[in-house]
Parts: sequence; C-alpha cells; structure tokens
Amino acid sequence: MLVVMQEGATDTQIQAVIDRMVEMGFTVHRSTGVLHTVLGGVGPVEHFEPSDFEVMDGVKESHRIVSPYKLASRHFKPGGTVIKIGNVEFGGRHVVTMAGPCSVEGEDQIERAAEIVARGGAQVIRGGAFKPRSSPYSFQGMGEIGLRLLRQAADRWGLLVISEVMDQTQIPLLLNYSDILQVGARNMQNFNLLREIGKTRKPVLVKRGIAATIEELLLSAEYVLSGGNYEVMLCERGIRTFETSTRNTMDISAIPVLKRLTHLPVIADPSHGTGKRDYVMAMARAAVAAGADGLLVEVHHDPERALSDGAQTLRPEQFQEMMTQTRAIAQAIGRTA
Amino acid sequence: MLVVMQEGATDTQIQAVIDRMVEMGFTVHRSTGVLHTVLGGVGPVEHFEPSDFEVMDGVKESHRIVSPYKLASRHFKPGGTVIKIGNVEFGGRHVVTMAGPCSVEGEDQIERAAEIVARGGAQVIRGGAFKPRSSPYSFQGMGEIGLRLLRQAADRWGLLVISEVMDQTQIPLLLNYSDILQVGARNMQNFNLLREIGKTRKPVLVKRGIAATIEELLLSAEYVLSGGNYEVMLCERGIRTFETSTRNTMDISAIPVLKRLTHLPVIADPSHGTGKRDYVMAMARAAVAAGADGLLVEVHHDPERALSDGAQTLRPEQFQEMMTQTRAIAQAIGRTA
Amino acid sequence: MLVVMQEGATDTQIQAVIDRMVEMGFTVHRSTGVLHTVLGGVGPVEHFEPSDFEVMDGVKESHRIVSPYKLASRHFKPGGTVIKIGNVEFGGRHVVTMAGPCSVEGEDQIERAAEIVARGGAQVIRGGAFKPRSSPYSFQGMGEIGLRLLRQAADRWGLLVISEVMDQTQIPLLLNYSDILQVGARNMQNFNLLREIGKTRKPVLVKRGIAATIEELLLSAEYVLSGGNYEVMLCERGIRTFETSTRNTMDISAIPVLKRLTHLPVIADPSHGTGKRDYVMAMARAAVAAGADGLLVEVHHDPERALSDGAQTLRPEQFQEMMTQTRAIAQAIGRTA
Amino acid sequence: MLVVMQEGATDTQIQAVIDRMVEMGFTVHRSTGVLHTVLGGVGPVEHFEPSDFEVMDGVKESHRIVSPYKLASRHFKPGGTVIKIGNVEFGGRHVVTMAGPCSVEGEDQIERAAEIVARGGAQVIRGGAFKPRSSPYSFQGMGEIGLRLLRQAADRWGLLVISEVMDQTQIPLLLNYSDILQVGARNMQNFNLLREIGKTRKPVLVKRGIAATIEELLLSAEYVLSGGNYEVMLCERGIRTFETSTRNTMDISAIPVLKRLTHLPVIADPSHGTGKRDYVMAMARAAVAAGADGLLVEVHHDPERALSDGAQTLRPEQFQEMMTQTRAIAQAIGRTA
Repeated sequence: MLVVMQEGATDTQIQAVIDRMVEMGFTVHRSTGVLHTVLGGVGPVEHFEPSDFEVMDGVKESHRIVSPYKLASRHFKPGGTVIKIGNVEFGGRHVVTMAGPCSVEGEDQIERAAEIVARGGAQVIRGGAFKPRSSPYSFQGMGEIGLRLLRQAADRWGLLVISEVMDQTQIPLLLNYSDILQVGARNMQNFNLLREIGKTRKPVLVKRGIAATIEELLLSAEYVLSGGNYEVMLCERGIRTFETSTRNTMDISAIPVLKRLTHLPVIADPSHGTGKRDYVMAMARAAVAAGADGLLVEVHHDPERALSDGAQTLRPEQFQEMMTQTRAIAQAIGRTA
Repeated sequence: MLVVMQEGATDTQIQAVIDRMVEMGFTVHRSTGVLHTVLGGVGPVEHFEPSDFEVMDGVKESHRIVSPYKLASRHFKPGGTVIKIGNVEFGGRHVVTMAGPCSVEGEDQIERAAEIVARGGAQVIRGGAFKPRSSPYSFQGMGEIGLRLLRQAADRWGLLVISEVMDQTQIPLLLNYSDILQVGARNMQNFNLLREIGKTRKPVLVKRGIAATIEELLLSAEYVLSGGNYEVMLCERGIRTFETSTRNTMDISAIPVLKRLTHLPVIADPSHGTGKRDYVMAMARAAVAAGADGLLVEVHHDPERALSDGAQTLRPEQFQEMMTQTRAIAQAIGRTA
Repeated sequence: MLVVMQEGATDTQIQAVIDRMVEMGFTVHRSTGVLHTVLGGVGPVEHFEPSDFEVMDGVKESHRIVSPYKLASRHFKPGGTVIKIGNVEFGGRHVVTMAGPCSVEGEDQIERAAEIVARGGAQVIRGGAFKPRSSPYSFQGMGEIGLRLLRQAADRWGLLVISEVMDQTQIPLLLNYSDILQVGARNMQNFNLLREIGKTRKPVLVKRGIAATIEELLLSAEYVLSGGNYEVMLCERGIRTFETSTRNTMDISAIPVLKRLTHLPVIADPSHGTGKRDYVMAMARAAVAAGADGLLVEVHHDPERALSDGAQTLRPEQFQEMMTQTRAIAQAIGRTA
Repeated sequence: MLVVMQEGATDTQIQAVIDRMVEMGFTVHRSTGVLHTVLGGVGPVEHFEPSDFEVMDGVKESHRIVSPYKLASRHFKPGGTVIKIGNVEFGGRHVVTMAGPCSVEGEDQIERAAEIVARGGAQVIRGGAFKPRSSPYSFQGMGEIGLRLLRQAADRWGLLVISEVMDQTQIPLLLNYSDILQVGARNMQNFNLLREIGKTRKPVLVKRGIAATIEELLLSAEYVLSGGNYEVMLCERGIRTFETSTRNTMDISAIPVLKRLTHLPVIADPSHGTGKRDYVMAMARAAVAAGADGLLVEVHHDPERALSDGAQTLRPEQFQEMMTQTRAIAQAIGRTA
C-alpha cells in the first residue's frame, strides 16, 4: 500500500501513520520528496480500506497496490478457466448461447420455449421460478413446479438448465433441478448467498449489479471461489446511467476488461442490457465481437403475452436470426457459436 | 394508462393495442390527432410495464398514469405518519438522531458508544452485528453476541436500538434485540426479505440502494406496507455517480421529494452519504435544513481503530458538535433536535 | 401533447391548464377517467417544455408526443443519408475508418501517421490543431501550421481530412484545410458554433457529450440541419458513468438506437470511448458488429511519446490488426471495411 | 508521481519506465517490495496524465501526487478569498443572494423582477440576454437590448448585475453591462473562453458542468486564475445522474468539499439544481446550511408565462419566503443572509 502525506505534514503525523501501518503488519518504506512524503507498505495481505488512512491527519491520499481479489485474478490462472458441464464448455472456443423465457409460466409455454431454444442451436435453457419484481402486485413465479417443468422440457430437448437462486434457503431446491445457479444482479452483493453457494460444487453465473463496478463484481466472484467452488461465470447485463432510451446501458467494454483481469468465463445478457427487443440482436453481435464467451437471452413463443419482461424478449424468428448472426460474428473472430 | 401511436400507425396496429388493453381490463378511450392517435385506458389497477406496450407494432410510447405504489403515497395519508416507539416519535416535530458505531466490536466499545450517544442527546443507538463486506477476507461481525451487547448498552443508557437484518432467516433474532429493523441499501430490493418484514409488526427503516430511484424506494416500502406493517421509515444514504471526492453522492433533494410523495418519515445518513468524516457535519446540517425527520450517523470512541467504516465515523467531540449544530438548524425551521 | 391531471384536480385547475394550452395554439381534447382527467393537445409544432405544465396546480405529469427534433428524425428520410466526399461514402455499405494522432505535432510525425493510416486501408486522417485540455499548463496544439501539415500529408497519401473546430471564430480557417468539421464532445451544446456550422456546406461530425442523452445529440444535429447543412454525422465516444476501469463507458447500444431514430450516419470512437489502447480493438469490433457506419481511432508511430492522449492511441501494428479484424466483422454482417 | 509495476514486471520494463520519468524531468526513487516495485518521481511540476504510464508494459497503475491545480488550491490562500464588488462581499460572513429571471424578456418584466429581488433583500440581479437552448426552435434571448434593460433596472434598485457570457466574442459586450461574468455549465470546459476571461479583471462565476468532477471544476477555475484574474467564484448547480424526479441531482456535498479544497467563494443554484420550483426552497436552506457563500435563484413575477425555465422559477411570494428561511438558517450557523 501507499500513503501520500500532504504538503507540510508534520513528523508527528507521519509517525502516526507509520505506527498504524506497522500495527497492521506492514513493513514501511519512507521516501521524502520536495513537497510530499510517501510511505510504502509491504505486507502479506492487503485487507484494508485506503480511506481509513485518508482520514488520518496529514494524509493526502492512500492507494492499495495489490488487487483486493486473488483467486479471481487472471494472474492466478493465466490460461483461463473452462467450465465443462456435460458436452458444453464455457470459456472455450465455442460461444455458448443460453436462452429461454424470463419466467416459467406453464408446461406448454416452457415446452415450446425448449423447442425454439434447441432448434436454434442454443445449449442451455433459462427460465425463472422465483421472480423478484419491483412491485408487490406483480406475478411472482411458479416456484418448484416451475423448476420441475423447466427440467423436464430441458431433458426432452437435450438442454442444460440455468435458473436463478433468490436467497440461500433456495439453494437445496435449485441444486435438484438446475445445472447452473444464477445469482441475479440485485443479489450480486448478497454475501451470505455467495458464501453458501461457495460451499456447493455447482457452476454459478454471477450477474453484475446495475451499480456495481467491475472490481466489485470480481470481489463477489471471490466470495464464491474462496469457498472452494471454482466454477464461476460472470455476466454483464447493463448498468444504470442517465441515458433512458435503453433500460440500462450495456457496458460492452466490461467484456474485454474482464477478460484481461480474470480467468473466469464472461457472459453477456443483451436482453436485460437493453430492455428492448429491437436492440437485442445488435448487442448480441457486439458482445460476441468484443469477446464474450456466451450469451444469455430471453425468447418466448409469444412475448406480447409473457407474464414478465415481454418488452425485451425475442420472438422465435428473431431468435433464429440472432443465432445466425452471432454465428457469423463468432467465425469472423475464429470462434464458433 | 396512455398509449401514443406512431405517425402513420395502421388501423390494424391500433386495434391490436386496443384489444390488448381491453384484455388487461382497461376501458379504452381513443382520440385521433393530426399526427398521432392516443389511447387512454381507465381501469381498476395498473400493474403493467409501459414498455410491454412500447414494443408493440406502431406504438410510439406508453405511460402509466397512476403511481405504481398506493399505500406509500402521500394521497393515502396526507397528514403524514408518526411512528412512536416508547417516548420517541419519528415523523413529528422532533428530529431524531440515531448514532453509534458501524459494527458492535465488544462490550467496552459499545458501552462507550452508548455513553457518547446518550450524552450527546441522541435517542437511538445503532450498531451492526452482521456485516456485509465487499471482501470475503474482512471482519464479518459478532452475530448474536453483538446484538446482546448492543441491547444491554442501550438499556443502561435509555436508548432505543436499530440494527440491520441481512436476510429473512435473521428476522426472529433481530426481533428479540432491536426496536427498529434496518434494511440495508444492498437489500432494498430483496423482496423476500421485505415481504417477511411486512408480516412483523416491528418498525423498519429501509435504506435507498445506491442505484435506486426514489420511485423504486417507494415500491420497496410498498412491499412492507402491503403486508400490514405500517411503521416504515425511508433513508437517503447516497447514490452512486461519477463524482469520486465523496464515496457516494448524497441526494439531499430526495428529502423534499420524498416528503412530497409519501407520508412516511424520511431519515438521512450523512456517514454513508459522504463516506468521509470531515463532510458529515455539513451534510447533517443540510439534511435537517432540507426537512429530514431524523439522522443516522456513525460515531466511535476511536474511529482510527474501528473494525469497519472508520473513515466515515465521527470522533466523540465531532458528534457533540454535530448535535449542537443540527439542533440550531432544527430550531431555525421550527423544529427541535 | 398530453397533460395528466392529479386525482382530485379541481375544475378551476383543469380550466387553467386548458386555457394555457389554447393560448399556446393547441386544440384540446379532454377525457375524464375515474381517477384522472387527461388533456390531449393537438397543434402545429411542439416547442414547449413539458415541465412548464408539470408545475401548474393540479397537474400530475405532462408529455411531449412529437419528438422535439424533425429534420434529424428517421421519419424525415427513411432511406438514410449517405454523405459522399470524393470517393468516400459515409452511411453506405462500406464502413469508413478515420484514423490518426490526437494532435498534429510536426511534419515528420504527421507524415508517418498518414502512411500508417493509408497503408492500413483507412480513408480519412484525423489530427487536432487546437487542443482543448483540462489543464491550462498542457500542450495546446500547433494551430494553423498544424492544419497545413495535416492537409499536405493527407494529399500525399490520398486521404480526406477531419479536424476539430473549437469555436465559431475558427470555422473559416478549418474550411480551408479540412474536409470534415469535427465538433468535439465538450462543444456538443455550443449552440452558437452549431448554428454557424449550419450555414456552411461542409460535412460535419458531431460528437456526443459525455453527459448528453441521445435525444440531446439529435437536437444538436437539428441545429446544424435547420441551417440547411444536411451533411451531418453523429459520433458515440463514451459517456461518463461510475465505472472507472475505462475512462468513459462506451455506449455501444447508442449505435442501434441512433440507427433507428435518425437517418444520419453513425460513427464510433473507441479510443475516447475507452481511454485505453488495449481495449480499442475489441470495442472497434463491437461497434462495427452493432452497426456503426464508421470508426474514428487514434494511432501514432510512437504513442508513448505522443504529446496528448497517448494512453488511448494505437501502435502502428495494433492499427493494422484492428483493420484486419474490423474488416472480418464487417463482412460477417454483409458490409465492407 | 508514483508508478506501481505489475507483479513479475521485468527489469527491462522497469528501466523503460524509469527512463521515461527521467526524460520528463523527474528524479526517481525505486523501492522494491515482495510483489511489486514502486517508482516515486519527484519533479518541479506534474503536467502529465497518469494513464500515459499505465499503458506502458509492466505497469500496474500510476498516480499523480500533486494536485493538477495550484492557484485554485486552498493551500495557495488558506484564509479564503473575499471578492468585493461595491458594498457586496462574496466569501465573507454574509451569504449573498443573486436572483432574477432566467431571461430578460422586456422592460416591464425586468423592472418588476428588480423590485422583487431588491425588496426581498437580495443584492444581485441575474438575467440572461443570450440563451443557449437545446432546441433551435426555442426563444434565444434579447441580446444587447436585454443587457441594457437589465443594467437600467439594476441601477434603479441598487443591485449588482450577473449575466452569462456565451463565447469569447461576447466578452467586450458583457464587460459594459455586467458586474459579474457568468460561465454556464455547458461552457465550463470552453477553455478559449476561460482563457480570455482570465485576461479581464472582472469577477467571474464558473458553473459546474453537469458531468464535471469537482477536480475538473477547479481546473477550469485555474484557467481563469492563471491569466491573472483572481476574482473567481464557483457554482454548484446539479449533476446528471440516473434519478429523474429532479432535473439534475444537486450535489450539496460539493459545497463542503470545495470549501476544503479551494479558497474561492462557493455559490449554489437550487433552481437549476432541482429544475422544479417546489424543491428550490428546501435546497436553498440545505445549501446555506452546508456552507454556501451565496445563492443563485430564478424568480419571475409570473413564472407560468416566463419564456424559459418557468418550471424552476419561484413566484414572488415564494422568493420572499425563501429569503426569510435562508436568513434563519444563516443565523443558525453564525452568518447573515
């Protein structure tokens, strides 16, 4: 860590900072410049908040040198993580598409969804059984019945299942039905949930919160990894900005940034990223072009009648077209899709 | 609700929208202008997403007319809600101060905190027993032991207790020790938690998420209210913006906006709002001047050695000074503090 | 326009709004619902601020129905605008690349840049002569000498020139040397400058401000178009958000949104969009995949020694590689580059 | 400056960075830790972009130690700047109110405004003669005639004048009529304008851009100060965030932050900060409570008929009430208003 003292910081102030650093286990190097004294701390780990030093008297600023995450870091596994579930590999040469409705609504609907997904060439079906809705008066999901229908439809069509776990009490249930646990954007910093998932050995996809920095997303991954569950995927799905022509602003640059900082597979969700069906295809192409290892998109046989998220859900023929286009983009960069 | 059709929308498109509106239970009024046809829908409730219509063919835009929340609305209770716990009233003429350390760290620490809080004239002590930390390697709280220490210290000094409930499994525990349940910013849209709290009859303080709009905060309150728990307070504690000189940007204007939209008491947390001790006092004054019904601030007998959030925690003498200053501001606007 | 009255709005309040609407030239349709009265106004133009009505007594909200821009709208020219300069077409099937250093620094530097740009297959050279820098102590550009060097290098290599005009007094100078006038992000709402450019007949590229909405960008285009200059291109170059791993957050979704809302060519600038060289290539691919009509990128023979913006400037070999990759992406979507 | 090398950075990489630092005029101190090598550079000035180093091979991050502004820094003048114009002092004990309409619309209107302003106890009248409007079809201001009317009304009522200068060509005109030059938010980084104003000896108020950081605002002040014009005031007027219940989010914390970082007087504009009349009073109180040295507010004898910004403009009786309330707040913190 580094602490930069203010111009005119007194010896007493500098000594107080050194004392605090030593107390925390750092070896301190002091270097005195014309205007500023800089203190460099070297230590085993750096679990501290730079701001704790910035409020000490005479301190101008403080910086952490070592990243606050370890296991999620690209340094930890430079070659990259490939997560293999059955025949499907996440993080390899093939760009995996996960698709399906926002919510499981019934047997017929999910069966039709599975057919659309499978015929389009996707390998994983998505569908929510527990729906977190901002209004208490909206449809809240089918619960376990929905999960069972989702599993059955997936099995009939040879698909894997991804579904969201809303809190730690639901983990056992989801383990029974889903191949991949999804942690939603609103739960990205539900650390109890992350810790419990870290104790399982089930692949997990962690979605970025709408106000979360990339570093915070990596720290959330670290929670799962530090429990011994190494099969973690990260998902960009839009951040909240001032722009209102899309529901969120999809941060496509997060894809190359994550590919550089971490070894974990990076997925993109253009449905939530834009919130509007008409922009999903262009953003799916952009995500693949930027290096995403997979896509997560919403498709429904009749989006106008979907019980949730209809506005961002592709029609069947749009989904087919998206698959064709993302396949062409993948090939242009030496991958398959 | 209102649906504005695009220029040149066809009769078939218009009819499709009308059919969908009727299907949802609306009575539809059609008015045809030179460029646009506008459809007005009147119905019992408006649980729909305007964007569901915006993706229909020929639709330009759609608007909800009635607010998506009811029980939280100022119309529902124009006179304002006063929450009375013992002798303390939230939402009345007196501006209530809630103060204490970020985390309960031990008996001596919390006892000293209670003394500072009580002598300063505050009426509620705060302190976390379960700490959600962005790094899995940081201090995670004392758990139930911490709650017991907090309660004992509060009782000795005649203070009420507010403490955070992190997930629904902790509700029974918190009910035993705390007078007010706090829902943290990261849990503002943990709807399962909100729903369960709605079944209790314990006052709750809901903190605004760092990326939550004011409307979303009110919808979260609605979750609790719709369960029959009417003792809800809302807390502004900073939103995430591009500015980095403070940890968050405290949205002081949320205070008058909330006072206008809702009857619920509005609390301000300048400690989290700024993230830096040196700005807490000015922002506490500003919050009271803007009409806040209460303050939530962090104070510790030795912030430099606090196990969490030290940078934003007031020193004892700063807390005393803050109480003096906010009292003067309260008097200037005809209140007490 | 639409005005939604509050529940319980009085007849006097409603009449006051109607009077004001009539006064502004609207024909008013009144429709009375169970809870709300809605007033629809039909009129020749809609140059008004909805908020002017929202502050009238009894008004709940107000909406503009017609977009505030006309000439920039896709409706105005559904087929799309193609701007032709010499042999180069912007907005056609070919994705045009504009590249060069941030600033013109000297004859040798700009000559080497022109060679890199031309050999890479780009068609336009960029380079600033007047540099707006946030610090008054930084390099401020070479002025007219720089423009002359830029023109000469471009002519030797058969390239077009794009260069920034900082204020209206520089327009005559830029007209002499540059084929395309660039309006920088900080000047996007310099309406005097836009109006003056509207009087010229020179193609202009308007960059989106870092806090500008897409609607505001289109209104800025409208300023130029309304002066009779129809050769306007728009450029996405990153918006300011809370994320700090890139200098700005490049809003790739702005590309398909703009393609839908306007007939004007849409350019993407991944150099400013990310601020970091290592992410430029991925974002250039993403922009082309999302439908951009052109790219604007920074390249320098020795970026470490560039006098400005070195961190986001490609090395020559990176630029070559980017051209190869964006060409492959363009082909994958049926275009050339 | 500080450069932190990546884990495993090679000696060649480290040497390349050292060479570059020496070339720029720094004396370099190298300190080698277990994981990272840190290079500290000491030099006369620090006009460089940290990101220029961050893209060098083997570099992890780079930090500027010295603030990029000097003359605007609180260190430069710890006691604070007081700007005296006639009998009015900005930055002293008295909180100065500047008020008036958004635009000068005619003789009668500005005369009535001056009366309201003066009778309310404010000391400066505001009013725009050149209006930057986002739509080219809106009212654009009265020009010099408006300035003359503004000056005459001010003189009749013993008020100072503040009015906006839109670009450098207007400076001579404004110098004739206005006591304070206002640089609008959209021009905060119009560096040519700032530089020209720096050559005058007229007090200037620089408004913060809606996407400008506090550091950038101080750099803009530095442009004026470095020209020898030391009478600069800064104005917080709202930043752009995701929240839409107010037009902008007024960053009240910018007031104490600025008071700490700079010696220049700090003004608050709650009219633009909120965009809605009903919230102006609460935010004016908050701004004074937070330590603002002055207020800039919009008032009009008939806001519903104002030609611009009516929604955020106070009615005469609201302005009177605001003056009463801010005076009470000022007294509560030991000031006058």
